[in-house]
This record gives sequence, C-alpha cells and structure tokens, in this order.
Amino acid sequence: MASPSERFTALRDQVDSGLQALFADAWPDRFRDVLRYPVFTGGKRVRPVLTLLAYEAVKGEGSDAGSALPAAMAVELVHTYSLVHDDLPCMDDDDERRGRPTLHRAFDEGAAVLGGDALLTEAFRVVLSGDQPPAVQVEMVRRLSEAAGYLGMVGGQAADVGLGGPVETLDALVRLHRGKTGALLEVSAVLGGLSAGADAEQLAALQAYGRAVGLAFQLADDVLDADEDADEDGPPSYVKLLGLEATQARAAELRDEALAASQGLPYGDGLAAMARFIVDRDH
Amino acid sequence: MASPSERFTALRDQVDSGLQALFADAWPDRFRDVLRYPVFTGGKRVRPVLTLLAYEAVKGEGSDAGSALPAAMAVELVHTYSLVHDDLPCMDDDDERRGRPTLHRAFDEGAAVLGGDALLTEAFRVVLSGDQPPAVQVEMVRRLSEAAGYLGMVGGQAADVGLGGPVETLDALVRLHRGKTGALLEVSAVLGGLSAGADAEQLAALQAYGRAVGLAFQLADDVLDADEDADEDGPPSYVKLLGLEATQARAAELRDEALAASQGLPYGDGLAAMARFIVDRDH
Repeated sequence: MASPSERFTALRDQVDSGLQALFADAWPDRFRDVLRYPVFTGGKRVRPVLTLLAYEAVKGEGSDAGSALPAAMAVELVHTYSLVHDDLPCMDDDDERRGRPTLHRAFDEGAAVLGGDALLTEAFRVVLSGDQPPAVQVEMVRRLSEAAGYLGMVGGQAADVGLGGPVETLDALVRLHRGKTGALLEVSAVLGGLSAGADAEQLAALQAYGRAVGLAFQLADDVLDADEDADEDGPPSYVKLLGLEATQARAAELRDEALAASQGLPYGDGLAAMARFIVDRDH
Repeated sequence: MASPSERFTALRDQVDSGLQALFADAWPDRFRDVLRYPVFTGGKRVRPVLTLLAYEAVKGEGSDAGSALPAAMAVELVHTYSLVHDDLPCMDDDDERRGRPTLHRAFDEGAAVLGGDALLTEAFRVVLSGDQPPAVQVEMVRRLSEAAGYLGMVGGQAADVGLGGPVETLDALVRLHRGKTGALLEVSAVLGGLSAGADAEQLAALQAYGRAVGLAFQLADDVLDADEDADEDGPPSYVKLLGLEATQARAAELRDEALAASQGLPYGDGLAAMARFIVDRDH
C-alpha cells in the first residue's frame, strides 16, 4: 500500500496532467505563455490534493478521482492567480517565487494583472467541466465564488494590505487568516465532497475538517517563520501575539479537530494523513 | 408608451437598485468603500440594459425583468472590474474616469487590484441569485466565464497591450475588438435570453444580435474618435485601416444585421432601438 506521501505525489501528478491541458487555445501566443508560466512552479498542490482526498474520503481510495479533477484544478487556478497578483509591485513586490522570476518580472506588470484575471475567470469555467449534476455544479460555483471573493480570500488580502488598519488583536488576525488562506483551503475540501455527491452530514464533516486545517496551515507557517517574527516590523503573526508554545499547542488542537472530522467520513485516512502533514511538517 | 430612451433609463434604474444592495457585508469597512466606488460612476449601463432588453425580447415588455437582474448585474460587475484594472498605471495609467479620480487614485493601487479581483469573483456569485433552473444557471456561468476570460475579453485586452505584437491588419483588429469589447456585449444579450428561458433558436438570434452590436459599438466609437485617429501614434482603429466612410458603412451594415436578428424574436423592438442608439449616437 502506498505511503501517504507517495499517495500525495500520485494525486499531485494527476492535478499537473489536468493543468497541462489548459490554455492550449489561448491567444495571442505570448499570452498563452503568460498563463502557463505561474501554473507550473513545482508547488506542492496542497489545495487540489485536498480536493482529491476529500473526494476519496467519500467514495473510497482507488475510486476514480478524475471526477474531482475539475474542482481540484479550479482551486489551484484561484490559488495561482492570487499569488500572481500578490507578487505585484503594488502588493508584496516580490521579484522571485520558488527561485524563478515572478510573472511580472518574467513578462511585465500588465501581463501579470491580465494573466491573474484570466486564471481566476478560468477557474469558473473549469469547475463546470466535470460530470456532476447541474444543481451540484451550481453549488460548487457558489461556494467557490464565496470563498475566493470579498467575503473570503480577497477580503482577507484586503485586511492584510492594511485596508482595515493595523491588525493587533487575535480576533482580527484569525479573521484575516480565515479569509486570506483559510477560506480557499476549506472550500477545497468541500468541493471534493460535492464532486463525490457527498450528503449533508459528510459535507459538514469536510467543512469542519477544511476549516480546522485552513487555520492550522497558517499557524504552522507562523511557527516555521518564528525566527523572522522576532522582527517587530514584520507582518502580524500568531507567534507574536500568543508566543511560540501557545501557537504550537493551538495548531495541534486544530489538527486534532481535523482528525476528528475526518473520522466522520467513510474513508477519511488520506485526509487525516494530510492534516498531520500540514501541521507537523518541518519543511 | 415610453420612448426607447425613457425605457433605457427605467431599466438602468433597475440595475442601479440591484447593484446598491451589493457588498453591504464586505470587510474591512474600507474595502466596502473600495468595492462600491467604481460601481457608481453615472455610466450608461449599456451591457446590463442589453441583458434586460434581451429578456424582454423573449418574454414581452412589462414582464418582470427582475428575473434577468442577476445576469444584468453580473455583466456590469465584469465590465466594472475590467475598467478598474485597465486604469492601473501598468495598463492605461488613467487618473480620471468620468471626471472622478480612478479607483487606484482615490485609494491606492493595491486596493484597485484587489477591488477588481473581488468585483470579478462576485459576478459569478451574483449570476446564480436568480430563479432559473440549475442547468440554465450552469450555462450562464459557462458563457460568462468564456466571454470574460482568455478566449474573450481578457484575451482581447492582452492583444491590446501588445502581447500579440503590433495590430496592423483588419483581421487582427477585428479579433482584438471582438474579444476586448464584443464578447461581453454579446454575452450580455445571451444571458438575458437564458434568464428568460429562451429556446435554441431565440438564443441564436440573441447571439447574432449581440455579436453584431458588439462590433458595431467599437466602430461607432472609432467614428466618434476619428479626429484623434489622425494621430499616428494613437491606438489602431478601423478608421485608420478602412477610412472614415468605409467604417461608417460597416457600422451601418452591422446595425442592420442586429435589426434583422431582433426581428427573429417575439418582442425585439427594444433591442432594435438599442442597436440604433449604439450605432447612430453622436454622444
């Protein structure tokens, strides 16, 4: 039997194959290059793998996860567009991502704005390319737009760039991160369930799982970045507000919530392994 | 009976009322201001009015166009986001729009990038808020994402910012404009029909109408801007490539195609008036 990390790799390869097929008909030709450039950067594909694992948690491992591939690709496209726009000079102003020039450095800023716009828009086309009944597809679009939009990811980013003033309380920080990173991770799990025809109880378990993992992901990041957090001028973090030990304890608590939620699903082992991977990573 | 322009105004007011209700729950508070700022600028609301007229063309004037309001709002949100991103310094670098500071001038560039992203995302949530059956809503999302994305509007914008090199032939210019402005105008008409439960033949008529009006809109613009087109360094235009007279003749031809298509619909008078308004305007 495949180890969890072998399994993650196999699912990641499925996602990569799906993404390879996109944008073949883009024009102008150079815009096709713009669209593909940020999609293939050697990322771990945490979100789409979560979608495929959530699908398997309902249907069983070895079931054809291909039915969940459209949703998996959609969440990865949303994630990718958000990085492209985040890297812009007027946002985080990053010149490199994973050792390569960022999109606006490799091409130009206009291309990066338009490229991000197109990746986001394509997510809503791709998510409809599966074999789910129309009522389920409508629910997938609804959940994805809510998670990605002003009530979710973009709202969190708006708080992160300071549109809500300085983030000084734990409540404000939790809200920011539940938006900025949590909402998309949560919906990644939920869309996998919807792709599998999950019932209401299973969807609730997947949502609870995704919500816990979504915040835990950020806490684990803050723990890994704890050294940088000594910098008073750096971004707000849980470690700064709670201290290292309390942040680790809270991350472990959220991991256990995720593990409990995964046990409410017929085949939740893959999701359980993912929750451990996210919180206990030292990578 | 209301004149066409009174009718357009009444429909525009319906659109404005619908848009007023959006983003009330946005956070941070200042981000709500960012999202609302570009939506209310005194624009003519050509696209959403087209959607409502297309609905009426199928169902009859006096029918409750409210069923088409979600689609109408969605196309206006897509149009608005595209202007916000177009105005950015790395794109057209415009400081004013309709006599007011552009969004990135009134707030800042980061807010304008995120605001545009959120407006686009919200379009896909809003379009689902009507009473259409799920299969129709799926088709609406599919058509909207195709028209707004890399195969439509954003592809045309990519060509417009030079990603396809200089635009020197009529074919290249037509493709650019069918993307940049035509695709969204075309889908505005189609979504009105879908909202009304149009049959395949009616949808084909609405698509033909929208396709003709979409390109005519741009030709009429080029005719109005003909003086500026004397500027060799200005953007490519039909007037430059065809001459003023041939451009006017082609616009009239497209208007007549639109009029013919509108006659294939049960109540196409409003659409016919809109086609005349778009091509024969001197405003």
